[in-house]
Amino acid sequence: MQYFHILSFITAILAFMFALYLYLWVKSQKVENPEISRIGSLIKEGADTFLRREYRLLAVFALAVAVLILLVFPRPIWKSDPLTNLMTALAYLAGTALSALAGKIGILVATLSNGRCAERAQKGLREAFLVGFRGGAVMGLLVVGCSLFGVALVLLLTGNTSVLLGFSFGASSLALFAKAGGGIFTKSADVAADLTGKVELGIAEDDPRNPAVIADNVGDNVGDVAGMGADLFDSNVAAMTSALVIASSLGADSYSATAMVFCYAVLGLLSSIAGIATARVGRDGSPTRALNSSTYVTTAIFLILTALATWLIEGFSWRIWLASATGLLVGLVIGLTTDYFTDDTKPIVRKVAHASASGPAFTILSGTSYGFISCFPAMVGIALSALVSYRLCAPLGGSWALFAIAMSAVGMLSIVGMIISNDAYGPIVDNARGLAEMGGLGEETIRVADELDSAGNTVKAVTKGFSIAAAGLTVISLLGAFMSETNAALAELSRELVTGFDIMDPTVFFGLLAGASIPAIFSAMLILGVDRNAQRMVAEIHRQFSSIPGLKEGHADPQYGRCIDIATVGALRELVPAGLVAIVSTLLVGFTAGPRAIGGFLVGNIVSGLLLALFMSNAGGLWDNSKKYVESGHEGGKGGDAHKAAVIGDTVGDPYKDTAGPSINTQITVVSLVASLASGLFASFSLFG
Amino acid sequence: MQYFHILSFITAILAFMFALYLYLWVKSQKVENPEISRIGSLIKEGADTFLRREYRLLAVFALAVAVLILLVFPRPIWKSDPLTNLMTALAYLAGTALSALAGKIGILVATLSNGRCAERAQKGLREAFLVGFRGGAVMGLLVVGCSLFGVALVLLLTGNTSVLLGFSFGASSLALFAKAGGGIFTKSADVAADLTGKVELGIAEDDPRNPAVIADNVGDNVGDVAGMGADLFDSNVAAMTSALVIASSLGADSYSATAMVFCYAVLGLLSSIAGIATARVGRDGSPTRALNSSTYVTTAIFLILTALATWLIEGFSWRIWLASATGLLVGLVIGLTTDYFTDDTKPIVRKVAHASASGPAFTILSGTSYGFISCFPAMVGIALSALVSYRLCAPLGGSWALFAIAMSAVGMLSIVGMIISNDAYGPIVDNARGLAEMGGLGEETIRVADELDSAGNTVKAVTKGFSIAAAGLTVISLLGAFMSETNAALAELSRELVTGFDIMDPTVFFGLLAGASIPAIFSAMLILGVDRNAQRMVAEIHRQFSSIPGLKEGHADPQYGRCIDIATVGALRELVPAGLVAIVSTLLVGFTAGPRAIGGFLVGNIVSGLLLALFMSNAGGLWDNSKKYVESGHEGGKGGDAHKAAVIGDTVGDPYKDTAGPSINTQITVVSLVASLASGLFASFSLFG
Repeated sequence: MQYFHILSFITAILAFMFALYLYLWVKSQKVENPEISRIGSLIKEGADTFLRREYRLLAVFALAVAVLILLVFPRPIWKSDPLTNLMTALAYLAGTALSALAGKIGILVATLSNGRCAERAQKGLREAFLVGFRGGAVMGLLVVGCSLFGVALVLLLTGNTSVLLGFSFGASSLALFAKAGGGIFTKSADVAADLTGKVELGIAEDDPRNPAVIADNVGDNVGDVAGMGADLFDSNVAAMTSALVIASSLGADSYSATAMVFCYAVLGLLSSIAGIATARVGRDGSPTRALNSSTYVTTAIFLILTALATWLIEGFSWRIWLASATGLLVGLVIGLTTDYFTDDTKPIVRKVAHASASGPAFTILSGTSYGFISCFPAMVGIALSALVSYRLCAPLGGSWALFAIAMSAVGMLSIVGMIISNDAYGPIVDNARGLAEMGGLGEETIRVADELDSAGNTVKAVTKGFSIAAAGLTVISLLGAFMSETNAALAELSRELVTGFDIMDPTVFFGLLAGASIPAIFSAMLILGVDRNAQRMVAEIHRQFSSIPGLKEGHADPQYGRCIDIATVGALRELVPAGLVAIVSTLLVGFTAGPRAIGGFLVGNIVSGLLLALFMSNAGGLWDNSKKYVESGHEGGKGGDAHKAAVIGDTVGDPYKDTAGPSINTQITVVSLVASLASGLFASFSLFG
Repeated sequence: MQYFHILSFITAILAFMFALYLYLWVKSQKVENPEISRIGSLIKEGADTFLRREYRLLAVFALAVAVLILLVFPRPIWKSDPLTNLMTALAYLAGTALSALAGKIGILVATLSNGRCAERAQKGLREAFLVGFRGGAVMGLLVVGCSLFGVALVLLLTGNTSVLLGFSFGASSLALFAKAGGGIFTKSADVAADLTGKVELGIAEDDPRNPAVIADNVGDNVGDVAGMGADLFDSNVAAMTSALVIASSLGADSYSATAMVFCYAVLGLLSSIAGIATARVGRDGSPTRALNSSTYVTTAIFLILTALATWLIEGFSWRIWLASATGLLVGLVIGLTTDYFTDDTKPIVRKVAHASASGPAFTILSGTSYGFISCFPAMVGIALSALVSYRLCAPLGGSWALFAIAMSAVGMLSIVGMIISNDAYGPIVDNARGLAEMGGLGEETIRVADELDSAGNTVKAVTKGFSIAAAGLTVISLLGAFMSETNAALAELSRELVTGFDIMDPTVFFGLLAGASIPAIFSAMLILGVDRNAQRMVAEIHRQFSSIPGLKEGHADPQYGRCIDIATVGALRELVPAGLVAIVSTLLVGFTAGPRAIGGFLVGNIVSGLLLALFMSNAGGLWDNSKKYVESGHEGGKGGDAHKAAVIGDTVGDPYKDTAGPSINTQITVVSLVASLASGLFASFSLFG
């Protein structure tokens, strides 16, 4: 065991203890309103039911994959050391289990915090903010703690980076399904509730008469909290894994490089703890400013601490520090430009709101156009950050330059504890707003909850841009990991090594075009899934309103459970084919066209995946905020033609930003990891490779 | 002069003579209805005005570029042979002039045929079909004849393939603006006419009371006829150019390869002439079948003739024949799969129509999803066709394999004369339908015109898939041309040659991500242009209805000219920035990050460009036909909720399929040619390259 292992374990445990403290603090807040606790427990129950059924299905899938890994990954068991295969399979299972745990705990805390946040909102903004934020922070700390602990433990026990790839694959394959399944659940409920409630019946968003209202609130938790936690757990593990895989190929320098990865991750977590501890709403009372300023505090602390470590510890390179700082700063810049396109105090949202006055077609056309334009800063930012890191560290020789790209991703993800806290804050206060309305806490409380919610939406744009950028950088460094793994396999087979993937080579080009179409198909399948599922739920809502006497007048209770059931069953039915398309197509291309085609496939996947993920997330956020802008009294306000058009834009944007967009993120990572794990197989067998 | 030059000139002249014969035949058809000839001449006048103003603007642009070429392309004039620069500049101007001529003649014939086709429709389907089709064929024959003549002449006079790149760049830069300008014109008129006419006032599509109705018909001509002619002229020239550039690098084999390019182009044109001559509607009276079967006839004749030529002529390779046949057959397959996604007798269109019953958001979501899925066959088809051609001819050694990819594109475009005839048929019969309605030719004639129109729409999907695929293959071979040019420049500078573009190289990767965002930005700018322009026109229509007494009741004439003016001025204002973004960003990346970044930039541009072009064209066609399907009485028929939603889908799809989608095509080609032309400059100067 090395000092950095010890440091990692201690810091992870520190994070767990701090999370426990925050959890107990949240729990100590009193719940007095009976209606809120009744609805709160309905939401908790619904979320638990969904998670239980989802995890049961995914457990079967994970076991099947584990058996497959045992048999053929990283090499066929009859040709290699069976112990490596066994360890990879176990690491895979550990990855899925930790990912599932992250989701489960997130739900636990979020459903605990939402009602308490709503009640505290009666006392004012500052206290309610703390409940929402600290609830989110529990999730943030646990996710980052688990990933640090897990990666350190797997590497300590096995010392084998291929096994670590298995761990990372476990985390990401579960994240893929959690994100996709949660995304389909949440958006089919949201779309169905909006269409029937707001549009057809003209009742408020969270009116308890709507049978889909609980499913909608459950959706916020299973989609945004559990899915997002799994997603960022996965990105974090993948970034560390790719850095460690490349570090292990650095020969004599491999010890220092490995130490650097862990130390930077430790310092990132410590900085996040500091940022979380100091977050509060100042006297001026802006929750957005509170969230953003604690992000800046975390960033600054991280940069200072890592600079100190680089200065003090022998073998740490200033060039790598610069690479990692570049990643982090580019991440912030990407977040801020995303904000420009989705913030309703900025011109773009207002232009789309204005276009809505001419009808829904213009809402869609203008939102789509600005969504496409908004990809540019992030695409170029990610590419620049990789290029700058590479050039900075090329003088170090060997694979250091590739390692620098990975460290740039580690840097970007260093403050992920803070990012998750901000991100999980969103659905908690969103739920709190709903509970305040359903619990009849009065106008003023709803206004406070609204303000908290709106801050959540603004910050969400930034954190989403951030997490897509981080995933982009991570998969670029996973490309490096894929090449190392492929060459290791080729060397064993005594075949010529791969020195790169030339786009002038039609085999690579073939992979490129095939890979580029996968994110499009994947996201289309998810959106169609939401579409079908929402249609089923709309039918159920219509059935309830026509068959339950007194429901419309509020004299009878709707059957919330039926809607939750439909959302659950439908989401589980739709998530599997989409996930399989991504995994199976990778294997298919690998086994037919070989490793060079897979190189192209990964890059095509990254390029079109980033483009579509950014487009969908940003366009969705833009439409959402345009609708809110119109609702706040512009362009004719609520009920006007512009509002109707803006609602249609928002409905289109919902599955874009909360189902397809963020899932593409995970899909890219999964494909990269599958390719790395199967690289040995592709190298030894492919039909036309 | 070689035998293939002579053959090329003779065949081109033959095509011109056949076109003249068809032109005179169309002209000999009588026009009797005074209203049709009045409105027909309004349309002709509007189209002429737009073209005149557009060409005047573009002439300034072309002259500026020609001066730039004279000064620095392919090498700075002070460092190279001034004669080459002069010839390149002149060839550039010739390319723009021929492209403009193709557009101008297309408009002339189309505006001549539309009224005659409408009147002939009174006598029945078969005669009216011939007028529409032969009108389109004049355009098809002239475009292909001009491109063959132009390429042969430039090569004969200069013997320099760099000069040929200049010619090709001239054709494509004008096509870029013609396509974008025409696309903005036609769609802003169409959208404004639909929104005010069909939606607000509930009057028919071509009701003469609508002030935008003439602008809408003018738009069909300037967008679909002139723009499409320039587009396919450009693709055809680019495909031949890239094949000839690579052929010139084949050393001893370069003569045979050059001969093959010209012979295949000659045989393609002859096959198209045969296909056009035999096209007629049979006794069963299906115009769709007539159009498709003449495409199949042309394909079969081409395959037989080229096989004969390969057998008889020494030095022609069967492997190249196979490559070119692969391209052609893949093109057909792509056309047919496109048809599956956009034909209303197939399930996809019906699914989208069914989704529309739940509201416009579902129309958009399902159309977007199927649009994304529909890209897959074409993406993989293009990649496979390049891969198969390459592998087939790799045993020939040298650059033969690269040449094979170019010949695959030449094969795909061989029947372009036939494709253009089919494509130009569409707007002619579309106009004829409008004229039949405005001229009051009665129900039966409108029904016949409707049937002709619907065949045009079905065939359009196939030809569009075809032309995007051809552009894709062409730009892949232009990549090869770019590498040859770059290496020629590097050799002159005695610097290390480029052997390929490795995606693991972060400079290439940087280019890749930057290049991938250009088509997104470019298409967004065009769509926003349509959006703004349509808004202006809607305002004008509202003004006319409120200020011209008796207009709504049909007692007064609207001021058609005002709407045409708005469409013209707006289109010209919007087209320049979008076109410049593509050209300037290429130069910017080249001069900052150097040739390797440009390699990545081109590939990123191709990958995301193909994806978006296919997505937009197919989704647009899908929405259009879903709307027609609903209008034919399904899902509640005209006026129902599904219809309203489907109309919104169609409005979104209009700028997708007729402005952005097809312009992206040209944008990809332009960027590739700019890169090839400037490769010498990038090689000798770049900031961080």
